[in-house]
Amino acid sequence: MEDINLHFTGDFHALTTAHNLLAAALDNHIHHGNNLKIDVRRVVWKRVLDLNDRALRNVIVGLGGVANGVPRESGFDITVASEMMAILCLAKNFADLKIRLGKIIVAYNVEGKPVTANDLKVVGSLALLLKDAIKPNLVQTLEGTPALIHGGPFANIAHGCNSLQATKYALKLADVVVTEAGFGADLGAEKFLDIKCRLSGLQPDAVVIVATIRALKMHGGVAKNNLAEKNVDALKIGAANLEKHIENIQGFGLPAVVALNAFPTDTAEEVEIVKNICKSKGVKFAQSKVFAEGGAGGIELAKAVEEVLNSEKNFTLTYADELSIKQKISAVATKIYGADGVNYLPAAEKQIAELEELGFGNLPICIAKTQYSLSDDANKLGRPKNFSVTVREVKISAGAGFVVVLLGNILTMPGLPKVPAAEKIDITDDGIISGLF
Amino acid sequence: MEDINLHFTGDFHALTTAHNLLAAALDNHIHHGNNLKIDVRRVVWKRVLDLNDRALRNVIVGLGGVANGVPRESGFDITVASEMMAILCLAKNFADLKIRLGKIIVAYNVEGKPVTANDLKVVGSLALLLKDAIKPNLVQTLEGTPALIHGGPFANIAHGCNSLQATKYALKLADVVVTEAGFGADLGAEKFLDIKCRLSGLQPDAVVIVATIRALKMHGGVAKNNLAEKNVDALKIGAANLEKHIENIQGFGLPAVVALNAFPTDTAEEVEIVKNICKSKGVKFAQSKVFAEGGAGGIELAKAVEEVLNSEKNFTLTYADELSIKQKISAVATKIYGADGVNYLPAAEKQIAELEELGFGNLPICIAKTQYSLSDDANKLGRPKNFSVTVREVKISAGAGFVVVLLGNILTMPGLPKVPAAEKIDITDDGIISGLF
Amino acid sequence: MEDINLHFTGDFHALTTAHNLLAAALDNHIHHGNNLKIDVRRVVWKRVLDLNDRALRNVIVGLGGVANGVPRESGFDITVASEMMAILCLAKNFADLKIRLGKIIVAYNVEGKPVTANDLKVVGSLALLLKDAIKPNLVQTLEGTPALIHGGPFANIAHGCNSLQATKYALKLADVVVTEAGFGADLGAEKFLDIKCRLSGLQPDAVVIVATIRALKMHGGVAKNNLAEKNVDALKIGAANLEKHIENIQGFGLPAVVALNAFPTDTAEEVEIVKNICKSKGVKFAQSKVFAEGGAGGIELAKAVEEVLNSEKNFTLTYADELSIKQKISAVATKIYGADGVNYLPAAEKQIAELEELGFGNLPICIAKTQYSLSDDANKLGRPKNFSVTVREVKISAGAGFVVVLLGNILTMPGLPKVPAAEKIDITDDGIISGLF
Amino acid sequence: MEDINLHFTGDFHALTTAHNLLAAALDNHIHHGNNLKIDVRRVVWKRVLDLNDRALRNVIVGLGGVANGVPRESGFDITVASEMMAILCLAKNFADLKIRLGKIIVAYNVEGKPVTANDLKVVGSLALLLKDAIKPNLVQTLEGTPALIHGGPFANIAHGCNSLQATKYALKLADVVVTEAGFGADLGAEKFLDIKCRLSGLQPDAVVIVATIRALKMHGGVAKNNLAEKNVDALKIGAANLEKHIENIQGFGLPAVVALNAFPTDTAEEVEIVKNICKSKGVKFAQSKVFAEGGAGGIELAKAVEEVLNSEKNFTLTYADELSIKQKISAVATKIYGADGVNYLPAAEKQIAELEELGFGNLPICIAKTQYSLSDDANKLGRPKNFSVTVREVKISAGAGFVVVLLGNILTMPGLPKVPAAEKIDITDDGIISGLF
Repeated sequence: MEDINLHFTGDFHALTTAHNLLAAALDNHIHHGNNLKIDVRRVVWKRVLDLNDRALRNVIVGLGGVANGVPRESGFDITVASEMMAILCLAKNFADLKIRLGKIIVAYNVEGKPVTANDLKVVGSLALLLKDAIKPNLVQTLEGTPALIHGGPFANIAHGCNSLQATKYALKLADVVVTEAGFGADLGAEKFLDIKCRLSGLQPDAVVIVATIRALKMHGGVAKNNLAEKNVDALKIGAANLEKHIENIQGFGLPAVVALNAFPTDTAEEVEIVKNICKSKGVKFAQSKVFAEGGAGGIELAKAVEEVLNSEKNFTLTYADELSIKQKISAVATKIYGADGVNYLPAAEKQIAELEELGFGNLPICIAKTQYSLSDDANKLGRPKNFSVTVREVKISAGAGFVVVLLGNILTMPGLPKVPAAEKIDITDDGIISGLF
Repeated sequence: MEDINLHFTGDFHALTTAHNLLAAALDNHIHHGNNLKIDVRRVVWKRVLDLNDRALRNVIVGLGGVANGVPRESGFDITVASEMMAILCLAKNFADLKIRLGKIIVAYNVEGKPVTANDLKVVGSLALLLKDAIKPNLVQTLEGTPALIHGGPFANIAHGCNSLQATKYALKLADVVVTEAGFGADLGAEKFLDIKCRLSGLQPDAVVIVATIRALKMHGGVAKNNLAEKNVDALKIGAANLEKHIENIQGFGLPAVVALNAFPTDTAEEVEIVKNICKSKGVKFAQSKVFAEGGAGGIELAKAVEEVLNSEKNFTLTYADELSIKQKISAVATKIYGADGVNYLPAAEKQIAELEELGFGNLPICIAKTQYSLSDDANKLGRPKNFSVTVREVKISAGAGFVVVLLGNILTMPGLPKVPAAEKIDITDDGIISGLF
Repeated sequence: MEDINLHFTGDFHALTTAHNLLAAALDNHIHHGNNLKIDVRRVVWKRVLDLNDRALRNVIVGLGGVANGVPRESGFDITVASEMMAILCLAKNFADLKIRLGKIIVAYNVEGKPVTANDLKVVGSLALLLKDAIKPNLVQTLEGTPALIHGGPFANIAHGCNSLQATKYALKLADVVVTEAGFGADLGAEKFLDIKCRLSGLQPDAVVIVATIRALKMHGGVAKNNLAEKNVDALKIGAANLEKHIENIQGFGLPAVVALNAFPTDTAEEVEIVKNICKSKGVKFAQSKVFAEGGAGGIELAKAVEEVLNSEKNFTLTYADELSIKQKISAVATKIYGADGVNYLPAAEKQIAELEELGFGNLPICIAKTQYSLSDDANKLGRPKNFSVTVREVKISAGAGFVVVLLGNILTMPGLPKVPAAEKIDITDDGIISGLF
Repeated sequence: MEDINLHFTGDFHALTTAHNLLAAALDNHIHHGNNLKIDVRRVVWKRVLDLNDRALRNVIVGLGGVANGVPRESGFDITVASEMMAILCLAKNFADLKIRLGKIIVAYNVEGKPVTANDLKVVGSLALLLKDAIKPNLVQTLEGTPALIHGGPFANIAHGCNSLQATKYALKLADVVVTEAGFGADLGAEKFLDIKCRLSGLQPDAVVIVATIRALKMHGGVAKNNLAEKNVDALKIGAANLEKHIENIQGFGLPAVVALNAFPTDTAEEVEIVKNICKSKGVKFAQSKVFAEGGAGGIELAKAVEEVLNSEKNFTLTYADELSIKQKISAVATKIYGADGVNYLPAAEKQIAELEELGFGNLPICIAKTQYSLSDDANKLGRPKNFSVTVREVKISAGAGFVVVLLGNILTMPGLPKVPAAEKIDITDDGIISGLF
């Protein structure tokens, strides 16, 4: 368990190294005459470290005179935010990995044209560094159940699901494969379905929507400190959030099961309310007690899922490939978030025009927004209505194969708190680890 | 073979992460009020990456306003230049590793006092990240011979030998243990003996001095392009360099064997000259043909070594612990390099005074200088005489336990050439690697 | 004429020097121990130069180690954007100048409290440097008419009128004093009346609104290249802009005269349209031909002004001192711009709360917005309706005595074009100047 | 008196503006496509301000993305260190000024070729900004004597004398013209004679060497706090310094007068010693009491000068134009400083080779070194012997027309002390100035 949370099989280190090799090759190219005429102010490929280090968010590199590169502004992201992580998770196989690595746009030249990893001629080296990281990692749970852990693209600026290869391996090995998609169904599920399933042709048989009474009460307006108290009224209000998520999954044409993660503070009356909502929406309900009871606590849920696996389904994506970028954004915003419309800041308008001009208009979109609300405003709880969302920035992940649409400021390099966990972690001379969890 | 040259067992990645965690903790401390009153202009702990990336030599971090750290000048070194690498290689055991990590000086406060990793309270976390890296790695050669590969401290700013633990494990497992010390005997051997042996109590039974006729001709003034041509006169002149190295080893009170690495262009007459020098100096001589013939090509050398292993010896360090820093520098410069004396730039004078004031005067010294000459001037070939060396900078590696003395500019982050090897490396879809060697 | 456009009497140089002395004192204070605990990330006092130099907009200063200050992000503005320029123009006398200089907020400390020029103890020096610059400059026009030229605060981030002292001197010397307020009546006139008149107690007797048929056609939708063509329809549409400016002045309770700057391309029919609008609004109209005919061309206008000087008037400011900052912004936005309401970005909300907390809520406001539209959107021509304005940033000029409210990005350091005027300017060995105008 | 120490006639402001316009034009050129292929890491033209501001010594400009220039490292010097100041002081007339401005090297391109102000096409603008600054300023002393004050090139990196034009004007207006050359005769006089006289053809009739008994005692080893005490022994030792200066002037073939600046603490015996030294060296001696008595106190000195003005002289420069740079340096070091020889750091060697390659070998040299010693080591007092000097850096001032040779680190932007004079300066509301002197 500790090792999975430390260096594990080294996949993240390999990604970090490959990502930074591409950055080094780029600055090296600029240093040695810059034949590709890269505009040093339009380099988009940053560096990464697998650490929370806010001081690296914005840096200036290449200082110190003629021998030490060319000065430019840049920064570091956390490794999971690397486009290479998204690529590793979407690559069909090693050959596809290489093709996608080559398409990464690292900068724009003085004429505004993209410069790619292929232009820097280091794709072979990048692939070599990733030759083992591309292989899914088979582990076991504390109960001995096999599991595949592979990849971890940032759930906002990327698609937030494990690797396609791991999913496919699992489908060969097991009767039923469960996979996770981070954050709410407006983020994780939407991206799993509209990006990963679209690009791979996978079709899920059912969707489990995880809910907690605590979270629904929060969506009903209860403050964080009071969530342990029974509050039927707030729960009823907040449950509108769950209803929207159920509707969204139904909109994809898929059967849904609501898994209610049990907490000791849940009351029978509250559980009943959620159960009834599910009933009224026509989806199955199951309590999940895996946190307290391990695998045994998941049997009710497993049975509920099993029952719907063979239901009829009519899987439908939110938008078609051939729609314009704005039409795609509008489709997700109105159908999934429940927004009335979409505003575009001037910079975003310009970027969309440029990306369509460059031929990226037919890619799926990956929307980054707050996970605290169905809208782009973290304060709008429950099931917000009568709102529009604002697109601030639009970027291309040409290797991963999607257009990133930013609603709000997304932090791609976290910082540490005043007393970081690192101050509490220890390991004795005998190897006893403490403070890691 | 490829894996050893790629991620191997992840030791370097673990070191990179631990090193950078310490840096992140430091900037985080400054950001959250800077209780330790660290002077942002006197932070000495940089960050590291295991890549050649000159654009990172000098950077400014902490930019972007109040939320993103505090601005300061810093830089990146290559991972092997991390003091943590030296610590990992000198630690007696895991307990000693933690003690040494805690002593690392990361900065000076506004009053000029050292701030250590202990002050930042992350030593437990650092140790946890290094819990596997601290374990020696057992590998085999292409012929199946077991070998331990562990650690790689930069041979100029650190002591340039593998880990103490690996050496001790090997001594338990084998009759004869061979270890390598980088660069010439004025650098690698001097540091192996005066630092690693001093700190550990190890005493070698014999020293193998590796020589080539090509290198000796170069020391005799032959240009690199002409080294394949027979040149007895140049060889005789350049051999003075070998003589000095033999004298140095004898000065340590140890038996020496000269191993002449055979090249196809060596002539019998030239080999004979080297052989005679060895004879006149009273040391054994053996040709080594391991490059061409593998293990079989080393039998002559192995026998020569075996013969001297039990010779009488009287191991003597170059200087005693209790000498002042300047006396130690003078001892190495005059006895090992053959210098007449030592000059100190004003900054170095000041640093020496500060370090002795801080109580670091009793540590061994680790001198960084060019490997191309016995002097500190790369152009002085052969056995230079009538020269003095100039100390430009003196730093403390308090965790590793030595004082670093810089004669000249030492680059701790290499750059890539115009056409980096990364452009030639490739791996096919079937996993066939090319261009790596 | 050339000298007025070159160094003139050195006022701008004196301001530049005083401004930069304050900056040097601030960085010097931080360097020598920072007793005032200034947060280096919250220094708001930049440096200035009287040049267009975009490369200085964002700089990092204090680099190079312990001897060379403390690193921080900063920048340069153009001299006219200095708060000292606004102060010089609003100071009642030398004593008042010193008081205002002392109130300048240069930074915030680590607790978020303001640090002022008084805290840095250099107000005496600043005042000394400005001892001559504070004195109005008497010049003459090409026709020999006396004129006072004194001060030039940036018309967006400051109040855009000449110095109060110059106006008062002129009022002592002449029967009728004409002064200019930059940009449209929504900017220059509003600030002249709501800031300069409010703070000084001055009351104008009449306002001249300058219009051109070209500009009104532009407001009617005609492209810049076609403004020379007669276009009665566009003129009629665009004239709504003029009507709003007339209404605004009438809203201040002041008599207005519209001065139509004559162009050769104006047609009689077009002139008549403007004339009739003035008539319908109840204000005087006069054609001004001073560009072509000098003083003689202004006689019609002068007579018109003379006629209204003694009209009854009821001077009323747009808002009262005791209103909150938001109420003041709302008053200007709705009464002067014709907006429906005001939006506030989160950062601006926070700044307003902080400024009122610090006791600056009772100061007049100085709104920075585009001069191309009555709204905050340069594309909304004519007399825009059904719009709201968005406040992005709110800052305090505590010495000048107003709160700066930014609607949009305001550039306070211009850049040069690809072929700057400086390439065309020359002076012969005999002193003949060319290319300056 | 105050005004001369404040903005005076604005010459320095004009120089500051012209200097910075050239910098702005340079960054603007780089921003707009960089047709001249300027290497951003080899821009040598910094910016200037007429303030002590250490935080500006090293800055990074051009930050903030595509719209705000191109990032690069640079810095600010104090205005007197501008090459334009040296040019203004050496220009024969306005035409010559323009020629020299055009020759200024602002950067090197990617091929290492110089880029000049002419290449940036702004010489006309620069000249226009300097049209009045180029004119000498006539002032009067407190006693009403006319004096010309014009220019002030930094006495280390430039030649340290007032303008050639002012000297020539004075020669037309007066029978005897006295001019000052900063620092010791090894610096000020050497540069006045070897640079200003060489370039202009001027030949002085006599040289006044200013000495004080205090300074000579200091050269004899007395600590600063004890200089008020009589110390005949120390004076005799320190007087060797004066002897060397006398010999140097005699070496130029010029008659010398030693002016002893009288102090209340001087004793008759001490004065007699200095007098006798002058006698033995064959030069005139006079006490100067102008500090205490004004012009009357200078009559003895004036008479002494008058007596030697028509002496025979044989003016000889230290070196001929056609010598190599190293020969010139050697000539000054051995003849003027009394050194045995000259060492060159590798960087300086390379720069000399480059400058001679570029055709600057025939220019006079301007050596920057400490003013505290005849050697390049501030601690070597009196008349040092048996020393060599070390050349660290060599630069070209192509517009001024000399090669700058740096012996040691020369600070071209001073810093302020912990309590700067600016804190003590004040001006009352009535204009009474205090603290300025």
